[in-house]
Amino acid sequence: MIRNATFYKNLVDHFEIVERGARYKKIARQVRVRYNSAMKIPPIPPLIMETYEAARSRQAELTKPHGSLGRLEELSAQLAGMTGQARPKVERKAVIVMAADHGVTLEGVSAYPAEVTRQMVLNFLRGGAAINVLARQAGARVVIVDIGVASDFEETAGLVRRKMAAGTRNIASGPAMTRAEAEEAIQTGIDVIHEEIGRGLDLAATGDMGIGNTTASAAIVSVLTGLPPIQVTGRGTGVDDAGLARKVAIIEQAIQANRPNPADALDVLCKVGGLEIAGLAGVMLGAAARRVPVVIDGFISGAAALIAAGLSPQVKDYLIASHLSVEIGHQAVLKHLGLAPLLDLQLRLGEGTGAALAFHIIEAACRILDEMATFSEAGVSQA
Amino acid sequence: MIRNATFYKNLVDHFEIVERGARYKKIARQVRVRYNSAMKIPPIPPLIMETYEAARSRQAELTKPHGSLGRLEELSAQLAGMTGQARPKVERKAVIVMAADHGVTLEGVSAYPAEVTRQMVLNFLRGGAAINVLARQAGARVVIVDIGVASDFEETAGLVRRKMAAGTRNIASGPAMTRAEAEEAIQTGIDVIHEEIGRGLDLAATGDMGIGNTTASAAIVSVLTGLPPIQVTGRGTGVDDAGLARKVAIIEQAIQANRPNPADALDVLCKVGGLEIAGLAGVMLGAAARRVPVVIDGFISGAAALIAAGLSPQVKDYLIASHLSVEIGHQAVLKHLGLAPLLDLQLRLGEGTGAALAFHIIEAACRILDEMATFSEAGVSQA
Repeated sequence: MIRNATFYKNLVDHFEIVERGARYKKIARQVRVRYNSAMKIPPIPPLIMETYEAARSRQAELTKPHGSLGRLEELSAQLAGMTGQARPKVERKAVIVMAADHGVTLEGVSAYPAEVTRQMVLNFLRGGAAINVLARQAGARVVIVDIGVASDFEETAGLVRRKMAAGTRNIASGPAMTRAEAEEAIQTGIDVIHEEIGRGLDLAATGDMGIGNTTASAAIVSVLTGLPPIQVTGRGTGVDDAGLARKVAIIEQAIQANRPNPADALDVLCKVGGLEIAGLAGVMLGAAARRVPVVIDGFISGAAALIAAGLSPQVKDYLIASHLSVEIGHQAVLKHLGLAPLLDLQLRLGEGTGAALAFHIIEAACRILDEMATFSEAGVSQA
Repeated sequence: MIRNATFYKNLVDHFEIVERGARYKKIARQVRVRYNSAMKIPPIPPLIMETYEAARSRQAELTKPHGSLGRLEELSAQLAGMTGQARPKVERKAVIVMAADHGVTLEGVSAYPAEVTRQMVLNFLRGGAAINVLARQAGARVVIVDIGVASDFEETAGLVRRKMAAGTRNIASGPAMTRAEAEEAIQTGIDVIHEEIGRGLDLAATGDMGIGNTTASAAIVSVLTGLPPIQVTGRGTGVDDAGLARKVAIIEQAIQANRPNPADALDVLCKVGGLEIAGLAGVMLGAAARRVPVVIDGFISGAAALIAAGLSPQVKDYLIASHLSVEIGHQAVLKHLGLAPLLDLQLRLGEGTGAALAFHIIEAACRILDEMATFSEAGVSQA
């Protein structure tokens, strides 16, 4: 019998306390699975160990001391397990940048005015932003999605138009969106990535644009990691000491006002999240379901990954952490996800910039596996 | 009056104790300068502050929060200062791989037989090694130089033939080479890089091949940093615990037998160094003299950089540390040079592989500076 999302939502709420007790964990998990299926979250397949092992074996045959390429060797084997290809290729790459506005900007949490979200989307469409430059260099396409920018666009060439609302409501005084809106935004992300996979895609990356979104992300990270807001809230685009203190206070207020349930990622998302964060969680879930590896950018993508993993923990197998952000909460996010970042370049821009930089490293790992000569091919003596 | 290198060498030896006392440091420096000039080490110009500042100013105008691209911003400004171009381009790139053998392999310091140096050079020439794959990806050419491989090559298409000797002598019982040989090997490196600059070169990288060269490098690093061999000696291509203990003992013996003078980098080089290490030091000195930035790879390139900086401290202004190697002594090298690595991917292969990976990051930094729109161009509001 198929029931609707609300039915299962109520069941999950009912089992909230149960979820925390080991004895009933299995029941809660079953409920979550059926709940996700009513939400149309696609099932995520396990990694393929045969291709993972094949990649590991080939690494040992290549003309270099065993293990001497460190993380590159580990990375290519992981991609082999994700994709089911013993020698994975990462030729077709895309950065999915989700843009949305945040009602919480009314509280003065950002150094930039809210109009900058719209202005930066136009900059993306004209190719002048950092993500355009870095994606061009990496041979990746940039997919700009308006999932909730507060104002409309006249110039829309190249824009994927999926606006669900003119931004979220102010989380300081109530939920960012309804549960149904959060579900729809996740579904939008799934749809967008499935369209891109349809166009041909070996490697996806997530990026964000949304003035105010480090505030929503810090709220999510605080709730889902259990750390107090002050430990996971950074300066975002660059607020000063007073601005930071204000931001922490607003996040505390948002959590107080909304009481998001840490055992229910969708509840956290709709109460203190954002539309682009929901969309990015959908991108991760949709990519993983189709065995497409996803490179996650910094703090906002990390918050989205926590939501995605809360809905479907298997998604973690398909995530690659591109870099460690300057945002202080990012380390806690990566620890919670069990991911180690590839780069540490003191970035804090977002847009998917760290992910686009990591494309080079991931491509290098795959090319090494695919293109290097073996000891026997090259006639090189082994240790 | 021009005097020969030996004259100034004797003078330097005479001032060895003087060098250590602050009072006579200036005299010792003057002697070193004249000594280097007899050795034909070209003078290294200071960074150009006008272009450095111009790059910094432009960074502040680009459509991103100030400083949000972290090390990329710092890096592009440094390149602007090195090259004298306010918007430096790094289109033409080359990895100079110097190959040589080491007499100390007789002591069983490596997991691989000495013939592997020659076999790997052939692998380089056929394009099957890791450095070939990574340089191809980065759009860089690979220049393979035989500066001292023990055996001759029949197949030499693409090989730069500058063999000075059939490897070094065993440092465990005497000097690796004569002082004149060390000077000539440095000059070879200078000549090779100047030829490459003549062909067109925006960014150089150093790489090495030489079974036994982590032993020579650890000896150099120990002498020039003042740290005991056990603190700077790693497993190289992968010796076991007994092999590591043996390697440390051999390095201690080499230092004991040769008594290299830490105040005289050329003395250290000829007594416990290697021909490829000398050549790479020359590459660094020659590139810096012509304002070409040099990306240094891991431990062996680091030892060469210590030699280069010992001969001409200004060279440090033109060095970019690509990555932090697994070799335990590498951190001490970078600290001594005052450089922070761009990557930490647990590499320990050599060949210039870490440097080739860093090319992408350096190119990204320069493209960001050159290609991004400014706030006024894009009509984006500032903070």
